Amino acid sequence: MPNNTFGHLFRVTTFGESHGVGLGVTIDGCPAGLDIDIAFIQQEMARRRPGQSKIVTQRKEADQVEILSGIFEGKSTGTPIGMIIRNKDAKSKDYSHIKDSFRPSHADFTFFSKYGHRDYRGGGRSSARETAARVAAGAVAKTLLKHFGVTVTAYVSQVGHMALDSPYGEYDYREIENNPVRCPDPAMAEKMETLIKQVRKDGDTIGGVVACVVKGCPPGLGEPVFDKLHADLAKATISINACKGFEYGSGFDGVTMRGSEHNDSFYEEEGRIRTRSNHSGGIQGGISNGEDIYFRAAFKPVATIVPEQDSVDKQGQPVKVAGKGRHDPCVVPRAVPIVEAMAALVIADHLLRSRSSKL
Amino acid sequence: MPNNTFGHLFRVTTFGESHGVGLGVTIDGCPAGLDIDIAFIQQEMARRRPGQSKIVTQRKEADQVEILSGIFEGKSTGTPIGMIIRNKDAKSKDYSHIKDSFRPSHADFTFFSKYGHRDYRGGGRSSARETAARVAAGAVAKTLLKHFGVTVTAYVSQVGHMALDSPYGEYDYREIENNPVRCPDPAMAEKMETLIKQVRKDGDTIGGVVACVVKGCPPGLGEPVFDKLHADLAKATISINACKGFEYGSGFDGVTMRGSEHNDSFYEEEGRIRTRSNHSGGIQGGISNGEDIYFRAAFKPVATIVPEQDSVDKQGQPVKVAGKGRHDPCVVPRAVPIVEAMAALVIADHLLRSRSSKL
Amino acid sequence: MPNNTFGHLFRVTTFGESHGVGLGVTIDGCPAGLDIDIAFIQQEMARRRPGQSKIVTQRKEADQVEILSGIFEGKSTGTPIGMIIRNKDAKSKDYSHIKDSFRPSHADFTFFSKYGHRDYRGGGRSSARETAARVAAGAVAKTLLKHFGVTVTAYVSQVGHMALDSPYGEYDYREIENNPVRCPDPAMAEKMETLIKQVRKDGDTIGGVVACVVKGCPPGLGEPVFDKLHADLAKATISINACKGFEYGSGFDGVTMRGSEHNDSFYEEEGRIRTRSNHSGGIQGGISNGEDIYFRAAFKPVATIVPEQDSVDKQGQPVKVAGKGRHDPCVVPRAVPIVEAMAALVIADHLLRSRSSKL
Amino acid sequence: MPNNTFGHLFRVTTFGESHGVGLGVTIDGCPAGLDIDIAFIQQEMARRRPGQSKIVTQRKEADQVEILSGIFEGKSTGTPIGMIIRNKDAKSKDYSHIKDSFRPSHADFTFFSKYGHRDYRGGGRSSARETAARVAAGAVAKTLLKHFGVTVTAYVSQVGHMALDSPYGEYDYREIENNPVRCPDPAMAEKMETLIKQVRKDGDTIGGVVACVVKGCPPGLGEPVFDKLHADLAKATISINACKGFEYGSGFDGVTMRGSEHNDSFYEEEGRIRTRSNHSGGIQGGISNGEDIYFRAAFKPVATIVPEQDSVDKQGQPVKVAGKGRHDPCVVPRAVPIVEAMAALVIADHLLRSRSSKL
Repeated sequence: MPNNTFGHLFRVTTFGESHGVGLGVTIDGCPAGLDIDIAFIQQEMARRRPGQSKIVTQRKEADQVEILSGIFEGKSTGTPIGMIIRNKDAKSKDYSHIKDSFRPSHADFTFFSKYGHRDYRGGGRSSARETAARVAAGAVAKTLLKHFGVTVTAYVSQVGHMALDSPYGEYDYREIENNPVRCPDPAMAEKMETLIKQVRKDGDTIGGVVACVVKGCPPGLGEPVFDKLHADLAKATISINACKGFEYGSGFDGVTMRGSEHNDSFYEEEGRIRTRSNHSGGIQGGISNGEDIYFRAAFKPVATIVPEQDSVDKQGQPVKVAGKGRHDPCVVPRAVPIVEAMAALVIADHLLRSRSSKL
Repeated sequence: MPNNTFGHLFRVTTFGESHGVGLGVTIDGCPAGLDIDIAFIQQEMARRRPGQSKIVTQRKEADQVEILSGIFEGKSTGTPIGMIIRNKDAKSKDYSHIKDSFRPSHADFTFFSKYGHRDYRGGGRSSARETAARVAAGAVAKTLLKHFGVTVTAYVSQVGHMALDSPYGEYDYREIENNPVRCPDPAMAEKMETLIKQVRKDGDTIGGVVACVVKGCPPGLGEPVFDKLHADLAKATISINACKGFEYGSGFDGVTMRGSEHNDSFYEEEGRIRTRSNHSGGIQGGISNGEDIYFRAAFKPVATIVPEQDSVDKQGQPVKVAGKGRHDPCVVPRAVPIVEAMAALVIADHLLRSRSSKL
Repeated sequence: MPNNTFGHLFRVTTFGESHGVGLGVTIDGCPAGLDIDIAFIQQEMARRRPGQSKIVTQRKEADQVEILSGIFEGKSTGTPIGMIIRNKDAKSKDYSHIKDSFRPSHADFTFFSKYGHRDYRGGGRSSARETAARVAAGAVAKTLLKHFGVTVTAYVSQVGHMALDSPYGEYDYREIENNPVRCPDPAMAEKMETLIKQVRKDGDTIGGVVACVVKGCPPGLGEPVFDKLHADLAKATISINACKGFEYGSGFDGVTMRGSEHNDSFYEEEGRIRTRSNHSGGIQGGISNGEDIYFRAAFKPVATIVPEQDSVDKQGQPVKVAGKGRHDPCVVPRAVPIVEAMAALVIADHLLRSRSSKL
Repeated sequence: MPNNTFGHLFRVTTFGESHGVGLGVTIDGCPAGLDIDIAFIQQEMARRRPGQSKIVTQRKEADQVEILSGIFEGKSTGTPIGMIIRNKDAKSKDYSHIKDSFRPSHADFTFFSKYGHRDYRGGGRSSARETAARVAAGAVAKTLLKHFGVTVTAYVSQVGHMALDSPYGEYDYREIENNPVRCPDPAMAEKMETLIKQVRKDGDTIGGVVACVVKGCPPGLGEPVFDKLHADLAKATISINACKGFEYGSGFDGVTMRGSEHNDSFYEEEGRIRTRSNHSGGIQGGISNGEDIYFRAAFKPVATIVPEQDSVDKQGQPVKVAGKGRHDPCVVPRAVPIVEAMAALVIADHLLRSRSSKL
């Protein structure tokens, strides 16, 4: 059943495979009259693209976005914005060994179970390369949000056991893009980078955590029952390849707290109703309260590793599968712009959705 | 914008307020010919209903379900199944103090921001009483799943700092309903119960974790991009009141693992392709692989506490708000059937969705 | 698959059967703060209810609407408005003869083909009684439209061969409710009434046409590709039981015209851009242009007739089926409020949808 | 709000403008394993493309389809099928005169009202060129239907006052593609062609009717309430540019019939339940009954004409607008494949939807 569409009023549909012609995306519902800066879209693509540093996959893709529709004289027209990103550096023969076999903890077996017929080259549609389309769309969502004063910033807060331990508000976000790990603490960034390099040298991979902060979100975004703002953020984020967990505000740590500690008292400041603490993570009853929205996402270690692993083929016969194909030793540095993109898509959608809550 | 509907092919719409006439739900898309056991629905309601034990809210509701449509001669007809549960024990005057003020960490302020006009009695639609409708619908989803050999079982794995530490597979699930906490380990259950009683005595509340296991799910459920099976489970679960975090399989712990430890090797067993470990939590690339699906959900402490708290009124003037109205000292015992219901809705939906993946 | 929901931002879900407990409806997405007049809803129900005159079915239903949710202190809260209408005068034993047989041109056979198991009493969910729920929802949509200065008026323009022949703008709509046929021309109304009585006396039925006019609709409603305003009106209208055709503006007659006659010239009047003629029916490129929207809907003769007819049973064996059960000799008098309701639902939905077309 | 998507389980999203880079479409939900014949898609495009004969617009477009995704080794993979058709012969300067003015009975004014900012070149997204994307998608839908034995055939049954008068079943459909009008009666086709040439010579345009027949559709397709099969066909068809009316089965003519004439008696034939007449047009209660589905669609005369017409500019000042830009003197010959495409999309969608009606 269709599942390649995300969002209701700001609605994104992606298509394309890792080793096919390319990736594509349509954005349906972007309001007319928005100034679209192609250079900014390309800049976001550069943050996600492979080959950007030594700690990510060495596949070389410029990830040049071609705009097909929906923009006229530099502004959105309200009609769908179509974009494609052609694949240039697919090395499909690296994947012939998995034509009939299943890589452990990849989607090979489940795609085979579900569809029978699959494009196995580079994982086909299950490849994280699909997220290139999300980032392109996310750049447009960010542009819309910027128009309304909302910003979305993510960063790496943990790689393996190395974790930042200060609250999200204490970091200087301008440091994030100054290191290949995308960690706002330069000293920690260096340690993380060293760890990732070691892991790669071992032919292995490692997990990590991405934290994300949305600033400037007005109160009233999010819907109170199933489409709670955090529920849509959770779905958006955990739908990113390799993501295994999501928490917002106090998250799993909130479990051990008492209500009297956890509750966020209200006060008034310059005509605005605010909270003194923010265990709510900017969302109460599924609706934004005007404070910072923050959440964290856990990413598992990439499944592609160099050593041979036990597996089976289509007939269930034992085979050995070794990790050919280029891959990331740790996804989180490149996951940062993807998490931002997904968060921006959610907030943009709810921004438009909120327009019909009152007369 | 509408947000009271969940699911695509097995689609549930809920309505109703905590202190209004009652709660209601329609299930649209239940296939025709399913034997519906009203007693079973009622039994599920009993697991969620207030007043069921000393460690939950003392509001007295029988939560009797009235079937309005969609069932004929004991079987579903394929037309929408409508159900209502009338409120009997609403004490609305307990809430007059919050008509114009906002309880900390409740949805009072955000509803006011979003809608302007709100039913403040018992939190109105933001009350967890809305989940009664989810449980009624979930009972029908469970019935459908049972027809296909799928079961859904949740339990409490943590209250405050007291946490179970064995893997989910090592507990005897028959113990779950033998104690009011719904913890499968009787000794731990007792300690948790004592803790909850203490917290209640303090006029305070405490958080907890619910774990959930889906057994018998065939491979091929879930869609590979945005509607990954775990993404829909995440959204479903975290949309439950007070839920702050979701993780599946290795979850946040998987972050510290290496790919070589984390990967689940395939092998063949009696004609079925299986995995030796299950860090994937039964889902790979967003699609079920036939192993147990398991996930965990974090719940914060309930916001209603007895002591006075600082807050503001609509005009932003400082007020003191004290917790009147009956409430749970800890939500997780009653969250267990709600988590199961939401998981059942997701799996039922994807079971039907999977019917169109092949010719 | 679910299909009991209509609309996107003003979204209606109906449920219930002709001879079950009753009919129900939820409206999800009605903006908060709208004054809801229950008496007006009831008045709309009275226009559709059976037994209202001698030329309609004699089933006696008060069609009393019970509000379940979504309205507080007389105003909508933005949460779903739930309503039920209980069946009081179902005579189900009239239908035992069709338990295993199929009435010609009814939905008995197709429901059996589709679902296997069906509630045959009074046609179950296929009965036009389902439209009671649409009218209740439509009354709320009309209330919303009235707030924005939009009105929806339908009338009978043809019964059998008796057809009005003046343009829609030349009738006095205040006459519509002055006769049981709901025809704005009193002389024609009398002739139509006589014809319907004759047809009923013959144990037969007859078709008719309902015309509908929407006044005060602002320019910019409707979406330009698939959800053109007229496309949604067409679907909404033709989804009413017994409706076989839909046309708007010049409709089928426009086929014989030349572009030079058909085009509607623009001019300016009091700061508003208007058209001199209105062959476009108020909609151009799928979007309202601010002129009157008008359309016509064809209704076939009701399938239930008194004489015995040839049919088959489940096994394909020949049977005779005679029309038991009360029924209308001509649907159009009661279709008038239903057509209005469906048009109001469409316009209300697009009114909210149009809020996101611009920044 | 998004509206460029059609269908639920077989879901099509189109994008692109008449004078932009090109048109595009994604098909999400095509089951895996379907043999896709690119030559057949191209052949369908050829039936719709401009410049195909002397009675259609002389814009020269090869309408070459580029497949971007979703097909591997000649078969669908279950992932979205992306296709683009680049514009080659746009002559945008023909449209500079309407940059600030509104062509009568075009979408210029309504787009301006709705969006403020619009791509006026060739009508931008409001151009019927958008239907190229529909035809490409429709070709895939037809391929799926063919796999299940269902065929869709449309033809021109009327141009201006010249109308076929025999029932749809009496024509030899092999004649349809033998003349540029696409009328199955060669003698009538010639008269229609002469008429269209005369109209074009006059610098004028003329309307017409397209009839469509679906054969081989199994019983049980269509959903009984809002998504009746004919309701979705109505919406699909009337969403085509210039379409003003839709009727199925007896349609508007059924209005004058009595129930006793109109009802279709059931009988059994070779184990199949059939009807003796087919006033129902193959659909009863919104669900297919296994007989031929047939419907008719009315198309108005094209709005672009050569003579100068009265209009206004953005400021409401009077202007004269003359028809520059190439255009069709009569849309119906090229509408034939578009109507087929839309019907195929509806039937394909309902074919998949019907898979969840039973256990």
